[in-house]
Amino acid sequence: MIKVVVIGSGNVAQHLIAAFEYENSHGSDVELVQVYARNSATITPLVPWDQITSSFEELIEADLYIICVSDDAIAEVSSQIPFKNRLVAHTSGAAGLQILNDNNRKGVFYPLQTFTKNKEINFRPIPICIESENATDFHVLQKVGKVISDKVIAINTEQRQALHVAAVFANNFTNHLYAIAATICQENQVPFDILEPLIQETAAKIQILSPIDAQTGPAKRNDQNTITTHLNFLKEEYQKEIYLLLTQSIQENGKKL
Amino acid sequence: MIKVVVIGSGNVAQHLIAAFEYENSHGSDVELVQVYARNSATITPLVPWDQITSSFEELIEADLYIICVSDDAIAEVSSQIPFKNRLVAHTSGAAGLQILNDNNRKGVFYPLQTFTKNKEINFRPIPICIESENATDFHVLQKVGKVISDKVIAINTEQRQALHVAAVFANNFTNHLYAIAATICQENQVPFDILEPLIQETAAKIQILSPIDAQTGPAKRNDQNTITTHLNFLKEEYQKEIYLLLTQSIQENGKKL
Repeated sequence: MIKVVVIGSGNVAQHLIAAFEYENSHGSDVELVQVYARNSATITPLVPWDQITSSFEELIEADLYIICVSDDAIAEVSSQIPFKNRLVAHTSGAAGLQILNDNNRKGVFYPLQTFTKNKEINFRPIPICIESENATDFHVLQKVGKVISDKVIAINTEQRQALHVAAVFANNFTNHLYAIAATICQENQVPFDILEPLIQETAAKIQILSPIDAQTGPAKRNDQNTITTHLNFLKEEYQKEIYLLLTQSIQENGKKL
Repeated sequence: MIKVVVIGSGNVAQHLIAAFEYENSHGSDVELVQVYARNSATITPLVPWDQITSSFEELIEADLYIICVSDDAIAEVSSQIPFKNRLVAHTSGAAGLQILNDNNRKGVFYPLQTFTKNKEINFRPIPICIESENATDFHVLQKVGKVISDKVIAINTEQRQALHVAAVFANNFTNHLYAIAATICQENQVPFDILEPLIQETAAKIQILSPIDAQTGPAKRNDQNTITTHLNFLKEEYQKEIYLLLTQSIQENGKKL
């Protein structure tokens, strides 16, 4: 049995905890033995109360401590773990391995997904990017990852940082484009949900086509009439600016990408 | 029985034809009686050869002619239909109702979706936006639409043009962001498919949250350290420009949207 402690009570912590508990109840050999939560309210529905602590002094011994806190708190939190030479991993896409305190062995356990409060998610297809200082620790991270995910991958700090930037484009910026589409619909008295099947299909398409090959639209086919009509239609300056820059980028970079 | 002729052989035509044929074989009261195709090779797998023509003079009588050609060919094609006072609809998101030739009654039958060659699609959830000059024609378009889709909606030309612009943001531009994410992965030796579950979940999220509420990431939480790290990480000028403009837009417009 591999014993795991999760430190944190936010979205990532909650989803990880739920996944460990689910797999453990189905016979996995990874046991979540404790959760450290400054705010235990989000955790009490997930684990028995006597396995939750809000004091670092009460942390118990485990094979792996997984820190799920915001990037700027990782260094401080990792320094509070009252042990030496244990395996301590953070779950950040942006932070390096070396941000962790030197008291313990360092690892990364980064689930590449966007987690939403109260929205259940199937962990099995979520890639878990792992990194460690030595092979033994790698093996532990891999074993723990495989308990909840079908896709555990060795990713070093630089690759992980690339993934993190790429994820900003594929997730944060994409979502902002959805928000702009929703605004345009609202301004013109059209329900946004008419666009939902299109949005789902756009995302589904890249499972069978590379996004370069999947590109369509007026920019791609250089349909200047439609581009001009669209720019005249848009009322807000920021919408025009984004429309222009992305149109230009599709035209200039759409092939070489 | 409502008799329909489809004019065109591209992606939209092929998917519409397949949907009509499927529903007809399952007892619908809409019959695809003929297809006009300049290039019949894409159509012969879908309908019997004797129902395909490549000559406008051979067009047969029908209750509805659906024109599925590129926007700049609609006017010319509609002028070639050798009948008077029939119902003729185009399938464009951008073209107005009035682009159709005056010989016949005008309609729009716009399926709001991105169609991919050789990728089957379930038509039932696809919104079909219809418009006509009178109530009788509206009823015909509605009946035909409902045979293949569960979502047939009255959308006037201005609303449809708004939807078309919104669709460029939600589909074309989103896909371009996927392409940039793929490029960043490639440049850093990380397989792009690691991002696929994230992309699917980002799209799935807006089914339960508005995109404004779903927004996350460094721009949203004003995490200037991460933004600077990302900008330093990006090598290509166009990637930096898009990163900056979308970050700024999330910060300035993310609330008011």
